[in-house]
Amino acid sequence: MSILVVGSVAFDSVKTPFGEAKEILGGSATYFSIAASFFSVVKLVAVVGADFADENLEVFRKHAIDTRGLQQVPGRTFRWSGEYGFALNEAKTLDTQLNVFESFRPEIPDTYRDSEYVFLGNIDPILQREVLSQVRKPKLVACDTMNYWIQSKLEELKKTLALVDILIINDAEARMLTGQSNLTKASKEIRSWGPKALVVKKGEYGVGLFMDGSIFGAPAFPLEEVFDPTGAGDSFAGGFVGYLAKAGRFDDATIRKAVIYGSVMASFNVEDFSLNRLKNLSSAAIKQRYQEFKQLTHFEVDEEF
Amino acid sequence: MSILVVGSVAFDSVKTPFGEAKEILGGSATYFSIAASFFSVVKLVAVVGADFADENLEVFRKHAIDTRGLQQVPGRTFRWSGEYGFALNEAKTLDTQLNVFESFRPEIPDTYRDSEYVFLGNIDPILQREVLSQVRKPKLVACDTMNYWIQSKLEELKKTLALVDILIINDAEARMLTGQSNLTKASKEIRSWGPKALVVKKGEYGVGLFMDGSIFGAPAFPLEEVFDPTGAGDSFAGGFVGYLAKAGRFDDATIRKAVIYGSVMASFNVEDFSLNRLKNLSSAAIKQRYQEFKQLTHFEVDEEF
Repeated sequence: MSILVVGSVAFDSVKTPFGEAKEILGGSATYFSIAASFFSVVKLVAVVGADFADENLEVFRKHAIDTRGLQQVPGRTFRWSGEYGFALNEAKTLDTQLNVFESFRPEIPDTYRDSEYVFLGNIDPILQREVLSQVRKPKLVACDTMNYWIQSKLEELKKTLALVDILIINDAEARMLTGQSNLTKASKEIRSWGPKALVVKKGEYGVGLFMDGSIFGAPAFPLEEVFDPTGAGDSFAGGFVGYLAKAGRFDDATIRKAVIYGSVMASFNVEDFSLNRLKNLSSAAIKQRYQEFKQLTHFEVDEEF
Repeated sequence: MSILVVGSVAFDSVKTPFGEAKEILGGSATYFSIAASFFSVVKLVAVVGADFADENLEVFRKHAIDTRGLQQVPGRTFRWSGEYGFALNEAKTLDTQLNVFESFRPEIPDTYRDSEYVFLGNIDPILQREVLSQVRKPKLVACDTMNYWIQSKLEELKKTLALVDILIINDAEARMLTGQSNLTKASKEIRSWGPKALVVKKGEYGVGLFMDGSIFGAPAFPLEEVFDPTGAGDSFAGGFVGYLAKAGRFDDATIRKAVIYGSVMASFNVEDFSLNRLKNLSSAAIKQRYQEFKQLTHFEVDEEF
């Protein structure tokens, strides 16, 4: 089944303790699309400027991502630059240039409107609803957001959340969104606004999944070399929604598996700069890391105590 | 099998957003002992002052903890006071009075010297070795430490670690100890100094266990009400070492189970002030929470991808 994703396509300039890369392809919808493409058909909705060369489309084409919804307009493509310190846990944003993204009005091609899965990437919650209203009959809607929208457009965001099945955010965002330090309590409040499930990303500390009557926790995959954390959250979302779309079910067991596939994709993504690792990933490697997650988290039932 | 534990017995004054308690029984060896007593016989080595009343011994007696190694000397008992903010993740120490702890020289009663399990609580690494040298033939030695010893007595600490099987510290301590931000790398370095296993406590984010050729990760138990985090790390160590002593084995599967029992004890401990929750805990409740951990972390092998 196919996934419609709306979000940013950008040129990133990233500096980490291990190196530097300038004007490389990035953006939330880019990372999401490539990660999700290992599981499902992906239909991309985003905007780029006149400076977006044909060669930049190559990676989308190679992964059979539908780019008919990628508008190209006069002006410059969205640019972000950031830097990671020693601990690699949080990007310090050095510069954000919205450029063509500033006046982005998503237009959904007619061939996209029957998408059964929708991922509303981190854009203005009003635009998120605009996109959603153009999809005929989605089976599952997942959504991301960020501190900027929580602080500046909370009421609009809540209107969007009322239409969303699964919210995927990080722990700081869950706390900011609710004013609740305790994530279990925060998850209840967020789910009272609409989402049936909340996925809380905790970076190197893993992921929590909160649903009615079921909580799932998984650690992050322990890597000796984390090269560039940019896009980890979006790669997670891509693997997560991608697997759900592939499975076509949303029962507890399937959503838990999707969390692990999301974690698998995030763990690969941080192993190299930009999309380099995801670009060269094989299904066999994904399968193997899923099994390694099983080993990582396995403990036996205890009969002795 | 019995566990010898050396560490602090203290009077704590604790303030959290949910309440306040003054001069309540605490200390690393206290939390460790009570938690471990649900699994094994515990022999306590510590020092208290003349102000330590008989009634303070009640909780140790009730849990059949051997207190023949608890010295009572003239002076005041060790006191600590701290405060937790909204996020409850880190104590701000308001005051530390070492008192009788300052000149503590652990003396191990002869009846303790055949203990097969030893837990060296967070005290001066020189004293940790002094204790260990008085134990005849320990099967397993586990150890804790803190930033103070890492900064002031690193070489002494490394000499102690050379004699230790399992080091149990938090993530900030693991990073400080090695200067390595990456925990997988830090664990390798620490294990090159002696310990066969490193347990990294991450508070609300769970625990990582690093051994040769095996890494285990477990989330913390999600609680809606965290009342007082004091003693969580020591309760973890008590459940962890307590279960290992009960099992009498140190294979991979057993150590993983021990991590879960440690996490179970820590999760109970934070549900109420001081020792209140551990004091009133039943084996049935421990057993049930272990099973809940299984549900929390369970996901299926995937045959579809």
